[in-house]
Amino acid sequence: MMNSFGHIFRVTTWGESHGPALGATVDGVPPGVALDEAMIQHWLDRRKPGQNKYTTQRREPDAVRILSGVYEGETTGTPVQLMIENTDQRSKDYGDIAEKFRPGHADITYWQKYGIRDPRGGGRSSARETAARVAAGGIAREALKMLVPGIEVRGYMTRMGEHEIDRSRFDWDEIERNPFWVPDAEAAATWADYLDGLRKAGSSVGAVIEVVVRGAPAGLGAPIYAKLDTDLAAAMMSINAVKGVEIGEGMNAACLTGEANADEIYMGNDGKPVFSSNHAGGILGGISTGQDIVCRFAVKPTSSILTPRKTITKTGEPAEIVTKGRHDPCVGIRAVPVGEAMAACVILDHLMLHRAQVGDGPRGKIG
Amino acid sequence: MMNSFGHIFRVTTWGESHGPALGATVDGVPPGVALDEAMIQHWLDRRKPGQNKYTTQRREPDAVRILSGVYEGETTGTPVQLMIENTDQRSKDYGDIAEKFRPGHADITYWQKYGIRDPRGGGRSSARETAARVAAGGIAREALKMLVPGIEVRGYMTRMGEHEIDRSRFDWDEIERNPFWVPDAEAAATWADYLDGLRKAGSSVGAVIEVVVRGAPAGLGAPIYAKLDTDLAAAMMSINAVKGVEIGEGMNAACLTGEANADEIYMGNDGKPVFSSNHAGGILGGISTGQDIVCRFAVKPTSSILTPRKTITKTGEPAEIVTKGRHDPCVGIRAVPVGEAMAACVILDHLMLHRAQVGDGPRGKIG
Amino acid sequence: MMNSFGHIFRVTTWGESHGPALGATVDGVPPGVALDEAMIQHWLDRRKPGQNKYTTQRREPDAVRILSGVYEGETTGTPVQLMIENTDQRSKDYGDIAEKFRPGHADITYWQKYGIRDPRGGGRSSARETAARVAAGGIAREALKMLVPGIEVRGYMTRMGEHEIDRSRFDWDEIERNPFWVPDAEAAATWADYLDGLRKAGSSVGAVIEVVVRGAPAGLGAPIYAKLDTDLAAAMMSINAVKGVEIGEGMNAACLTGEANADEIYMGNDGKPVFSSNHAGGILGGISTGQDIVCRFAVKPTSSILTPRKTITKTGEPAEIVTKGRHDPCVGIRAVPVGEAMAACVILDHLMLHRAQVGDGPRGKIG
Amino acid sequence: MMNSFGHIFRVTTWGESHGPALGATVDGVPPGVALDEAMIQHWLDRRKPGQNKYTTQRREPDAVRILSGVYEGETTGTPVQLMIENTDQRSKDYGDIAEKFRPGHADITYWQKYGIRDPRGGGRSSARETAARVAAGGIAREALKMLVPGIEVRGYMTRMGEHEIDRSRFDWDEIERNPFWVPDAEAAATWADYLDGLRKAGSSVGAVIEVVVRGAPAGLGAPIYAKLDTDLAAAMMSINAVKGVEIGEGMNAACLTGEANADEIYMGNDGKPVFSSNHAGGILGGISTGQDIVCRFAVKPTSSILTPRKTITKTGEPAEIVTKGRHDPCVGIRAVPVGEAMAACVILDHLMLHRAQVGDGPRGKIG
Repeated sequence: MMNSFGHIFRVTTWGESHGPALGATVDGVPPGVALDEAMIQHWLDRRKPGQNKYTTQRREPDAVRILSGVYEGETTGTPVQLMIENTDQRSKDYGDIAEKFRPGHADITYWQKYGIRDPRGGGRSSARETAARVAAGGIAREALKMLVPGIEVRGYMTRMGEHEIDRSRFDWDEIERNPFWVPDAEAAATWADYLDGLRKAGSSVGAVIEVVVRGAPAGLGAPIYAKLDTDLAAAMMSINAVKGVEIGEGMNAACLTGEANADEIYMGNDGKPVFSSNHAGGILGGISTGQDIVCRFAVKPTSSILTPRKTITKTGEPAEIVTKGRHDPCVGIRAVPVGEAMAACVILDHLMLHRAQVGDGPRGKIG
Repeated sequence: MMNSFGHIFRVTTWGESHGPALGATVDGVPPGVALDEAMIQHWLDRRKPGQNKYTTQRREPDAVRILSGVYEGETTGTPVQLMIENTDQRSKDYGDIAEKFRPGHADITYWQKYGIRDPRGGGRSSARETAARVAAGGIAREALKMLVPGIEVRGYMTRMGEHEIDRSRFDWDEIERNPFWVPDAEAAATWADYLDGLRKAGSSVGAVIEVVVRGAPAGLGAPIYAKLDTDLAAAMMSINAVKGVEIGEGMNAACLTGEANADEIYMGNDGKPVFSSNHAGGILGGISTGQDIVCRFAVKPTSSILTPRKTITKTGEPAEIVTKGRHDPCVGIRAVPVGEAMAACVILDHLMLHRAQVGDGPRGKIG
Repeated sequence: MMNSFGHIFRVTTWGESHGPALGATVDGVPPGVALDEAMIQHWLDRRKPGQNKYTTQRREPDAVRILSGVYEGETTGTPVQLMIENTDQRSKDYGDIAEKFRPGHADITYWQKYGIRDPRGGGRSSARETAARVAAGGIAREALKMLVPGIEVRGYMTRMGEHEIDRSRFDWDEIERNPFWVPDAEAAATWADYLDGLRKAGSSVGAVIEVVVRGAPAGLGAPIYAKLDTDLAAAMMSINAVKGVEIGEGMNAACLTGEANADEIYMGNDGKPVFSSNHAGGILGGISTGQDIVCRFAVKPTSSILTPRKTITKTGEPAEIVTKGRHDPCVGIRAVPVGEAMAACVILDHLMLHRAQVGDGPRGKIG
Repeated sequence: MMNSFGHIFRVTTWGESHGPALGATVDGVPPGVALDEAMIQHWLDRRKPGQNKYTTQRREPDAVRILSGVYEGETTGTPVQLMIENTDQRSKDYGDIAEKFRPGHADITYWQKYGIRDPRGGGRSSARETAARVAAGGIAREALKMLVPGIEVRGYMTRMGEHEIDRSRFDWDEIERNPFWVPDAEAAATWADYLDGLRKAGSSVGAVIEVVVRGAPAGLGAPIYAKLDTDLAAAMMSINAVKGVEIGEGMNAACLTGEANADEIYMGNDGKPVFSSNHAGGILGGISTGQDIVCRFAVKPTSSILTPRKTITKTGEPAEIVTKGRHDPCVGIRAVPVGEAMAACVILDHLMLHRAQVGDGPRGKIG
């Protein structure tokens, strides 16, 4: 259960950065979902590195193969195995890393825990593992499309280092137009210069990503310990380099009074409740309200930088380390499709869990 | 699995605010742990409401009984059942709530999901459920005491509404001296006045709680999806009213550069690695480094306030609601022992999970 | 997860034979199931010892209390806690057992594993734990009644020691008429004399119990490792003293040819497939066919007998042991309601699991 | 969780008979286990069809590849992905099966449940899936070798159709000498003629396989619902075509008296308890005693036979079916290495689970 998540729609990822392949074993897929490799490839291509100067120049086709669970273009209800072969394995780039521990990286903890680690490209702790998540998320999206027509899962960046978006300029259409998936055209321009400077300096910076699920039904979430927000928090925190997770107001909720935080309730024209605001991020008591589900997470800057840092070797000798080779000045960029994928998996899983216990749709009627 | 958490040390809580009793079924307890009711009662008493004017005046003895799993003062390895009877059940206080949904409360989502809900005192969604967590945490603490002598799990408040502590005045001894568990004597004084004002106004406010685990061994955490930080995030997010969770730098990690965020590594005098800083919060790649594990979460203000809010009834009619009766102006206060309990459970669980896969202690040696 | 079973409808039992109480924490209960204590008590009363001279004379009222999860006579979807207090605790009867290990009993293995055990009445390994299963099964039955009207779960004995039933005399109505739940009136008479002789001699004997589920829909079961027969086998093998489990032909399937074993298929008048026979026991490839689900298990004779047996003490000294006090000459009798309860829990759980993945009802149509 | 088994050492198999590949995702592997493809191939070769005239003539190299989790010949503690490509896919052999349901086969239930099925070679329900189990078992064996030197897991046939072995002729060395893995040379000769006759007649027959684990420590097993025998029963029942599972005396325990069934206890010369007999099959109260663990299961005859059987088509029309092509007259033969593999996985898993809760080795001392 260490490399798996989900209650019913259960994803297990496997593979190292520079091994023969990596992938995801996806169990609990509903039968009858239209699925082929192109549908999954679409999402992998969004995450793929090397598409612009802001992401690592490692070039992998990241071509996914479906090895099981699909027959004549439809899922059969048996496990879907998704495999991505590793083709670009310039492992000599990483030589120094085998003996020294990068500060801020999992090198030292994998070594301490297991007494053995695959140092090539970070092994299992590489951000490359997130390709498997994106692939699994592709299945979740197709299943959601069948079960909840019209549901949307979208992510974007809201902060890069010291720069934050201006929400008054928020524009959904802008997201696809810039390399940062930022919904603010002015920010996109500013960030491009900012990140270019960091890239040239061999530095790196953190980011905040927001994921919104629109059109999810009310009633998803299984209190107390399989709450929808609990599972979203776990899903996001499990992504490499994530150090904080927020739902709705997030950490800022601590600053509010009860009056300010209350999302007042009205009856909408379609006989469903509407809310005056969404401080709750679409989740109350661990269960979705039917509003937009809003989740946010912070990604730390990558530890692979050109400035020398003090460290030690495996034998305990003092050393300095500089990470040459290919890396991302802002790994947060590629975390956008990853966050979307995780959200899609969690929502589908909870839809299925709700169906198990309660049946189709919310059971309670209002009015 | 909806009301359970933990991989090996597995806690299932049960019970409603105003039912006959509530409690925790604790499976996977190591055998041979010294345990009696007083050890658990000690922690429950810290969480107990009605101890000062800042917490709800509902007075419950919250007396815990051990119904199983202990023989002659030691755990036997079989499940420990902890039961707390509900004695103060003034359910007439809550009459209005049965028909109307409180904005910002789980009333509406429980209704939508299940089509039935126990409205007495919030039923299952009441903060009263956290008593069961604190009780289970008491077992985890005693087991940790046996397995990792010297380990400490401590929580405190760092923010109440607009007020934050000044870390330059941080004083561990101050925590036990004030009703807010705040490690800053000046803040304690300021907050007392601030909260008194909110209480008199029938208002409420949010808070941030920080929990530190000191003395945990390196090597705890099971990547990729049972990472130590993933499980801590889930544990904290599952607590009522929590909207954000952070590890180490948390959301602020997004603002840092790779240079600033790197915790440089040295060899300590005892042959263990030491770090120049702890931006990582004691966890790298999902595995503990041996440093302090630092976790933080934000609690929103309670929705039970005296100012009328707009809402609807079960039949869909527009209404206003005012929550009279007993409530906490800052539920974050009582969340401190709850956060500690959750951290204790997660650490013990990961200690056992590590032992399962790797054996006692970290497997890798440095030096 | 050690004391739990079920994927969605998840039962965790707790408690020792002579502790304050024992019970079951039942999570994943569908909301809206009509439930009160009398409905559960009905099934507990069938299992209750001391009702005739063939079962242990320990007299416990075995009164169940519902502590949570039910509001105004309906389940709310939150965990149901079932508690049975232990009232008859004549622990002096068991003094000798604290120092010596009964051959064929869990005394020695609990000691070896945990280094501590509760010897009073067998502690956790007592058959008394099965009361918690029967109580949980009571909830499963009520939920099934709501979800699959007309479904029936019935158990009966088919063998006691050297005596087997004659299936040509099989009579459903006879089952409730005799103390052995045997569907063969002649066998009931013979067995009464046989067991009386064993009882007077302080001896004991094994039994075979068969459980049939009639009216379960086709399509239940989740291959490959959560097959319906896999989960039934686990459920039955987990009952105290069970040493063998069979589905349909069971062990005898080894003796058949493919021609003899084939259950030929026809279309029935109601447009559903019918089968010429039921060697499969209603399960093919781990999935229910819609036929009767037939499961069988063997219970070994209790090790509590009056004839002295050689053993050792905790300090390793050779000894003899005789178990005086109250015991059952054929524990298999009381295993009948236990087997029924386990079957009811497994079927409900798989119904919910099917609903999660596939939706209501089988997805494939024939014809 | 549908296609997974194990608590800590967790195996998920995936793949269809005639898809691109099948395999096993193995999580929770202890780090530092020596492992390469040849070690796993060794066990796969024992299961491989086409090695003699008694098994299906489908010829697959069944070459396993390790795609992850191993670095420089040692496991790293991350998931091991084992992949076996399907090379022999003569799917035209199976044409008739796509439209008609074979009596006694999963064809009809997969269809009913999912509304879609991969008919090529039985798809997911093919015995071919067991190759993935054998591969995973190869990892379990190597891990056991490291953790419990000297432990042995061995399987053999004890019955084929109407023929049973004579235990007075039991000879461990004989097992490897005949194509049936039968420990009785005379039986091997008789069975060869018997099976040859069935093969020529296009018929099939069932079998009983016994698996013995020698050298497992006392204390393995986690009562109540993760008992060692519960998990062995589930593991064996999950194998294709298995209809019955026994521990020790098995179903025959029902025929015994308490006196006959008691395994009396003595102190051995090495300070460990010894037993006068092993009716219990090495497990008491769900926990291993240190004796041989003895498990047995019955495999039904394959439904792929040349004699026409009555059935229906997908459209509900009456039909006859004859299964031409390649099949095994006694699938039980190839179930021997499968049963061994499942036992190895369960024992390793319980060793790890014991270590999690109790630490290394049994905690209780005798003497």
